[in-house]
Amino acid sequence: MTEEREESRIQWHPAFYAATKLKLHDNIDELEFYPEYNLSKKPLQADLLIIEKNSDVQIKNAIGHIFRKHNIVEYKSPGDGMTVEDFYKCVAYACLYKSTGENVNAIAGDELSITMIRESYPKSMMRELKRLGIGFVKYEAGIYHSRNFFIPAQLIVTQELEPDEHRSLRILSRKADEKDVKGFIKETLSYVTQGEKADAQAVLKVSGTANYHIYEKIRSESDMRNFLDEIKNEGFNEGISQGRTEALERTAKNLFDAGMAIDKIAKMVDTSVNIVEEWLSVRK
Amino acid sequence: MTEEREESRIQWHPAFYAATKLKLHDNIDELEFYPEYNLSKKPLQADLLIIEKNSDVQIKNAIGHIFRKHNIVEYKSPGDGMTVEDFYKCVAYACLYKSTGENVNAIAGDELSITMIRESYPKSMMRELKRLGIGFVKYEAGIYHSRNFFIPAQLIVTQELEPDEHRSLRILSRKADEKDVKGFIKETLSYVTQGEKADAQAVLKVSGTANYHIYEKIRSESDMRNFLDEIKNEGFNEGISQGRTEALERTAKNLFDAGMAIDKIAKMVDTSVNIVEEWLSVRK
Repeated sequence: MTEEREESRIQWHPAFYAATKLKLHDNIDELEFYPEYNLSKKPLQADLLIIEKNSDVQIKNAIGHIFRKHNIVEYKSPGDGMTVEDFYKCVAYACLYKSTGENVNAIAGDELSITMIRESYPKSMMRELKRLGIGFVKYEAGIYHSRNFFIPAQLIVTQELEPDEHRSLRILSRKADEKDVKGFIKETLSYVTQGEKADAQAVLKVSGTANYHIYEKIRSESDMRNFLDEIKNEGFNEGISQGRTEALERTAKNLFDAGMAIDKIAKMVDTSVNIVEEWLSVRK
Repeated sequence: MTEEREESRIQWHPAFYAATKLKLHDNIDELEFYPEYNLSKKPLQADLLIIEKNSDVQIKNAIGHIFRKHNIVEYKSPGDGMTVEDFYKCVAYACLYKSTGENVNAIAGDELSITMIRESYPKSMMRELKRLGIGFVKYEAGIYHSRNFFIPAQLIVTQELEPDEHRSLRILSRKADEKDVKGFIKETLSYVTQGEKADAQAVLKVSGTANYHIYEKIRSESDMRNFLDEIKNEGFNEGISQGRTEALERTAKNLFDAGMAIDKIAKMVDTSVNIVEEWLSVRK
């Protein structure tokens, strides 16, 4: 305790900056020095951390084949870019996570993995990583594994994934495939736990919102209606309804921008003037 | 703008967690999921960031031979440990720094370097890094360069550095070498700018505090007195005086712990009862 206090009283760091500057004084005019440089303005948050409870877990699904004990996952929403900065951010997150373990090597360096997920292939990121010597190889359709990177890293491109194996990720798209959606709905029948059912609903709701035309079409098809009756999937219906509302809202705004009066817009999109006004006010 | 708002309204991320859980449902009992995992409780700060103003800078001093445009430097005070967690933290800092550039590739991946500085060789860190396949090779005495790591990294061990070239770092030690100190004092005569003089004072002050016996001895030597008169180094004298005070304070505490009365302690360390009381109260 006393020792620590003594140690902390001598301000070594400012002297270190000074010593460093002196050592570099031949080049001093060519350099800028920023002691105690702030790296993060806001708290850092990994999209998802997955921890294997035991060391002998064998993940069955291909997206988990790369997993180690501690797995940092970064997910990009459809439409969001994925750049080389995202890759470095993931590496930073994994390293930071390791370095802030409860004690030294509480999380070992070879117990980490990185997973980055996006709808389409991030061409320029991959090109830049290749230029930097950070290579990836195709592991299977839609899954790319890093080669010799110090933390095993994978890129998952959801639209390239095998439909049969990966429907839940594939339908999280603005251009969901009808077959995938139907396949996923059939899949949900096999889910028995409350957790699985809730997860399936969460997926269907978002997928339905983004693809409500497809979902409406599916609902109207007689062979699918039985399935839907059987699973009584609230997520499915919520998704369609939310998707429809969003589409009408967008249309109302377009009409407003084109100069149409609010009461006329309300008639066009078949809703009340109040609701249209609300939609338009959100915008400001 | 509207597009962005639409995009942000659909909550893709929760659906993605759900989809991921569904994909891993064969192993669900063996896994723990932490969405939006917080990585940093406090703001992150690099000890020192050094930026080369131009791309063609050739750093003369060997500690800068590894430098790229953007250089993250981590310094450990004498007595502080340096573990593999520190290495990962430095990598995290470098990656985070790159990933938060003003725009994509504002800071390129191959424009980064990492420097870690410590008084003695961090054996267990180096052993663990070797185990992880992150090798270092000796570049010159006290300077180790990473081999094939994706960010060029170096470890500088100040007590192993060549005395002639690196005195300013070497004397930042609790066991400064008398020859180094004398050499550094002579070196300071060549410093002409205000900045250099201030840096030299900062180094001497801290080195003097930690090694005041050596500094007092040097001051008493006639051949050095001329040098000291010439440079009139306040840092030198401040260091000795601060070092002496700290040593007396430590002694006072030891005597107090051994059961001596405060007035007697004051006599022993040749100061007032008030000051001794102040020293002892700081402790609580």
